[in-house]
Amino acid sequence: MTHPDPVHPAWLPPEAFRAIGSRRTLVLGDGLLAGTVHDEVADACARHGGRVRRGAEDGPHDLVLALTTAEPLPAGVAGEVRPGSAIGAEGYVLARRDGVTVVLADEPAGLLYGLFHVVRLGERAFAGERQAEQHRPAMRRRMLDHWDNVDVHPVMGQVERGYAGGSIFWRDGAPRGDLARVRAYGRLLAACGVNAISVNNVNVHATEAHLLTDRLGDVAALADVLRPYGIGVHLSVSFASPVVLGGLATADPLDEDVRKWWAGVTERVYDAIPDFGGYVVKADSEGQPGPFAYGRDHADGANVLAEALEPYGGVVHWRAFVYNHRQDWRDRSTDRARAAYDHFAPLDGRFRDNVILQVKHGPVDFQVREPVSPVIAAMPATRLAVELQVTQEYTGQQRHVCYLGPMWREVLGFRPWGPDGPDGPSRPDGPDGTAAVTVADVAGGALGSGSGSGSGGGSYGDGDGYGGGLVGVSNVGDDPYWTGHPLAQANLYAFGRLAWAPETDPAAILDEWIDLTFTPATPSGTASGDAEPAETAETERLRRTLHAIMGGSWRAYERYTAPLGVGFMVRPGHHYGPDVDGYEYTPWGTYHFADRDGVGVDRTRATGTGFTGQYPPPWSQAYESLDRCPDELLLFFHHVPYGHVLHSGSTVIQHIYDTHFAGAEEAVEARRRWQEAAGLFDPSLHARVERLLDEQVRCAEEWRDQVNAYFFRKSGVPDLRGRRIP
Amino acid sequence: MTHPDPVHPAWLPPEAFRAIGSRRTLVLGDGLLAGTVHDEVADACARHGGRVRRGAEDGPHDLVLALTTAEPLPAGVAGEVRPGSAIGAEGYVLARRDGVTVVLADEPAGLLYGLFHVVRLGERAFAGERQAEQHRPAMRRRMLDHWDNVDVHPVMGQVERGYAGGSIFWRDGAPRGDLARVRAYGRLLAACGVNAISVNNVNVHATEAHLLTDRLGDVAALADVLRPYGIGVHLSVSFASPVVLGGLATADPLDEDVRKWWAGVTERVYDAIPDFGGYVVKADSEGQPGPFAYGRDHADGANVLAEALEPYGGVVHWRAFVYNHRQDWRDRSTDRARAAYDHFAPLDGRFRDNVILQVKHGPVDFQVREPVSPVIAAMPATRLAVELQVTQEYTGQQRHVCYLGPMWREVLGFRPWGPDGPDGPSRPDGPDGTAAVTVADVAGGALGSGSGSGSGGGSYGDGDGYGGGLVGVSNVGDDPYWTGHPLAQANLYAFGRLAWAPETDPAAILDEWIDLTFTPATPSGTASGDAEPAETAETERLRRTLHAIMGGSWRAYERYTAPLGVGFMVRPGHHYGPDVDGYEYTPWGTYHFADRDGVGVDRTRATGTGFTGQYPPPWSQAYESLDRCPDELLLFFHHVPYGHVLHSGSTVIQHIYDTHFAGAEEAVEARRRWQEAAGLFDPSLHARVERLLDEQVRCAEEWRDQVNAYFFRKSGVPDLRGRRIP
Repeated sequence: MTHPDPVHPAWLPPEAFRAIGSRRTLVLGDGLLAGTVHDEVADACARHGGRVRRGAEDGPHDLVLALTTAEPLPAGVAGEVRPGSAIGAEGYVLARRDGVTVVLADEPAGLLYGLFHVVRLGERAFAGERQAEQHRPAMRRRMLDHWDNVDVHPVMGQVERGYAGGSIFWRDGAPRGDLARVRAYGRLLAACGVNAISVNNVNVHATEAHLLTDRLGDVAALADVLRPYGIGVHLSVSFASPVVLGGLATADPLDEDVRKWWAGVTERVYDAIPDFGGYVVKADSEGQPGPFAYGRDHADGANVLAEALEPYGGVVHWRAFVYNHRQDWRDRSTDRARAAYDHFAPLDGRFRDNVILQVKHGPVDFQVREPVSPVIAAMPATRLAVELQVTQEYTGQQRHVCYLGPMWREVLGFRPWGPDGPDGPSRPDGPDGTAAVTVADVAGGALGSGSGSGSGGGSYGDGDGYGGGLVGVSNVGDDPYWTGHPLAQANLYAFGRLAWAPETDPAAILDEWIDLTFTPATPSGTASGDAEPAETAETERLRRTLHAIMGGSWRAYERYTAPLGVGFMVRPGHHYGPDVDGYEYTPWGTYHFADRDGVGVDRTRATGTGFTGQYPPPWSQAYESLDRCPDELLLFFHHVPYGHVLHSGSTVIQHIYDTHFAGAEEAVEARRRWQEAAGLFDPSLHARVERLLDEQVRCAEEWRDQVNAYFFRKSGVPDLRGRRIP
Repeated sequence: MTHPDPVHPAWLPPEAFRAIGSRRTLVLGDGLLAGTVHDEVADACARHGGRVRRGAEDGPHDLVLALTTAEPLPAGVAGEVRPGSAIGAEGYVLARRDGVTVVLADEPAGLLYGLFHVVRLGERAFAGERQAEQHRPAMRRRMLDHWDNVDVHPVMGQVERGYAGGSIFWRDGAPRGDLARVRAYGRLLAACGVNAISVNNVNVHATEAHLLTDRLGDVAALADVLRPYGIGVHLSVSFASPVVLGGLATADPLDEDVRKWWAGVTERVYDAIPDFGGYVVKADSEGQPGPFAYGRDHADGANVLAEALEPYGGVVHWRAFVYNHRQDWRDRSTDRARAAYDHFAPLDGRFRDNVILQVKHGPVDFQVREPVSPVIAAMPATRLAVELQVTQEYTGQQRHVCYLGPMWREVLGFRPWGPDGPDGPSRPDGPDGTAAVTVADVAGGALGSGSGSGSGGGSYGDGDGYGGGLVGVSNVGDDPYWTGHPLAQANLYAFGRLAWAPETDPAAILDEWIDLTFTPATPSGTASGDAEPAETAETERLRRTLHAIMGGSWRAYERYTAPLGVGFMVRPGHHYGPDVDGYEYTPWGTYHFADRDGVGVDRTRATGTGFTGQYPPPWSQAYESLDRCPDELLLFFHHVPYGHVLHSGSTVIQHIYDTHFAGAEEAVEARRRWQEAAGLFDPSLHARVERLLDEQVRCAEEWRDQVNAYFFRKSGVPDLRGRRIP
């Protein structure tokens, strides 16, 4: 460990800037982020021979990046802005006419995002004509939560559920001090559209609590470095801060001294960090303190923090992940899946306008397959952010290839009220040909509005209000590849891109990521006349290899792990690898109830926990019905005999056998593809991925054998195809 | 944690010395331990008004403790030694005639053990006449292994498998420095007959390795404090020491430089600690280094250390706990139970005379019920020590009452060649009326002799050679009650007493312990004319309470945990509480193979792993036979259907239900008895035990419900008595 490994450039290798850096660019506009845009282009030009000018100058220019407020705009550029149509805070217009590529934005952040759009296009940005396209993010807040601890936690380590080494922010109780690394991180995030991070774990331990007060300078230092890339900084705080830090006798949110304490402390935060984003709170959950201790509800709890933040435009991300983690496994009537809805739905309308209820995408906990959380359709008068887990806690811990873009796309495209539900702002060109509201619409603010000051709700596109958002739990650490598994970079990239544009095809995002990361010289779809045929063929092989390995990796992971939506079956504690009964007799509320006759959780209204009733139609009926429930969620909603026949025509038990043999085989095939592609990748990257694929194959076979053996021993049903089950 | 709790006196409260301390005592003889005897009596006299003299003096005396070499012996005392019969190194003769109680010994250690015998007798020592009784320990070495780490291990902590706080020797990488505590510990050990300890964990980590060389002074300081109580100090060493500490390129035991290195380092050890006991080695096991790395066997490995120790009379305790802990659970032909025999039996006769092969009492790992290890009968030409686990890793972790005396008595009294086997030195008055060799005889050296220098084998009673021994893994820590659970003190006490006298009834040992610890003023069986009737009644209640709670606690624990000898079913890692499948699909080799039809491990020669063949007759036949296998070991040796009928008349499945309901009910009953006895105990001790019994009840019910639910789900067989199974 004596020589620091060089940090991998991820999707911003120098080559990605060749098209821009070899041309003549004009940057028009003031402000910190316009400066960032200029400096990015200048760096690229220094490397690739182009030039960049700032302020009004005569051309010729190949690329103009201009604020709409810049005076004077060059001839022809002003016309790209449609009269009366504001582009919006982070949006931009991209066009190309008469040999000039133009990016126009109302604000400097838009210029930055426009610049990275041009980077993604590469040579294509400078070819032909391009009708003006307006781009704006679907989500106001595209945020990564870092579960990073300042102190090394005795059980959870430096980064809770982190699989990429230590934290890039903290080490052994102190700031890491490597601000160049933080800056590089901010740049990567901006390039995929992320605009906010939370810098510490939602489980706020003793040292971390002090980031709010006497260690605030550590947070301000991070904010200073991230600001030029448009990344706002948020802080996870302890609900007990008034007691723990303030020395008050109570943290009761209705106590006047507590209100004043939060107001005072928040004022000092904004003195230090004027563009501070706000607080993230995990309250009354898994041992964290919260308002229940004072007989208050979570609206009371969230509102006292929101009130303190409101003068500065800050928000509270209040997590809906509240459940009883000391459940009695013998009690089949308690259902952890119900908990978030039961706790929060009754509070709809009671949250202040700058409270954002942060809801995990599924009702349990980031399993490889869950239904969408019913909370998302249950709180029309509340701002919501949907939380995804980029760090692969339950999806292979960055030792397995598991490209999560397709899962997130499914979640974001899910229509909580069905295809005939209320229209949202979505384009009606989805696969189901309807404009009905999607999860992405809800997260984008289509429905949510606070109950409070009347600053209005509506979609972020409306340009006012606090918006909603998409939040991802970061998968980044101080690993040289950022994410442990080099291919897990794609998940970070896809998270940002889907937060900006949730309707994007995850395969297209994968292409973008591949082209930027591995083949910047020959972007996808370019008719690259100067690229040599051999190189093009290699590039195509590389692209096909990565699509083959990554494109279906989420579903392959699903196949070899817990079947049919039943979840868990992981080793308790670290959550890696199989243990079918690992959580079956625990207080954690995550059971499969397998016996010699059948398996699954009866969550119906008719005979089970009634969880299906938390959904609006048509899902409340579909999930309730054994006939209509989607196969992939069958065991999440129903307890069925092993002989139950799926829509696929297979029995449950045979499906278990078939998918587990198939999933493990896919891991073997992925390794084979990777081995064949040795010459196409940097050798050290290739070697690391190859080692990881060995582990993935081993672990997938372990999953296969344990799950199959478990269900064979329970059911006694032999495999129809006579394969060996140990 | 600011005020240190006072340390509990365990079985040596001041009251235990009242009978001696109120009388007139003469101590005759020189030497360090004779001084200890004098000082003990003097302390008691200072408290209770008696007097003590040293050296020949006129009487009258109530008690004379004299070395046979003392000149002149008082009149009447010399006659207690039978002509020509040496008492032996640690033995003593106890007699009472003409109003004088006499303890005679050849060596000072015998005086010390005799003194503590008188302490145990209390007033009875000074009543009536007493024919001369000769006492000598069955085992040469009665040893406690401390699995204490010097550094806090990141997973295992300060004491591996320790349930009584930190170490009394080490803290956070350094000696603890509380030598008064160590001295008090040595005194307790001497009082129950222990004469050796190993001061560090058999898993020797980086810091601990240095105790052998540059940190040897830390060991010498402990030896200095323990020497006055006759406790020899041993050290766990790393087999890789020549590499790790010596800078050699190899630790190959046949390498000449390695031999020289061990010789040199051992010479320095004896320079610092002239009565150093020897080395303890865990090699080629669970990641520890060993001779296999050099293509050598374990005789080669042990002998190189033994050769270095031989000039000083030191011994190597070489652990037989060698197995493959990376087993493939799919492979049913590999059997961890076979491992120790397979590794070591072929080496019989190849170990040097001062190698003691340290064999766990069962073939697997300290489960609540295992057969006796076949290694014990397999190595007649090798010195053996039998290893017991006093620390309750698998027997409730000192949160559950589990008095292990009865289990150890069963093990020590087991006749490896059956009741018709070769005669041992045991008295033929056992329950089976035979003098056939027992496990205790083997551990006592009845069979074992080294292959080496011809210094002879034979029982320790023969007075020469290195002997065998009984080794216990210590349950002691820096907890104020020494053992976490106050009642777990009885296990430490019983270990020492059984190591001295293996044929002792564990109920009698429990009485001794109760009387010393709780009611020293009124020892059991005394016609105490001056005790008030009320006190006697209370004392009797206390004794009955503790017998009710502790006497059957091992079998109660067996009832509510893994059934019929199958073992494990504990939570992986920490090993506390139930997890029926916790180890079922792991590499650890501990499986139960339950499926919908049956459960158990087929270890027969006919259809299983062949493990039964490692036993000599009659056990090889008895264990092989489904009809003759004892019920309590049935699932250790056989895989049977749930409907298999036991000798008890119950089916296996009904036995599982019945024992689990009964065992949990016994825990409830134990708590009830304890609650009723509130007034009989020190309030803080009572409160601590009451809290622990609450946890025991909770945990026993968890065991009951998980095991019953698991087997009901698997078998589908309802409880005949219709009780609720969750």
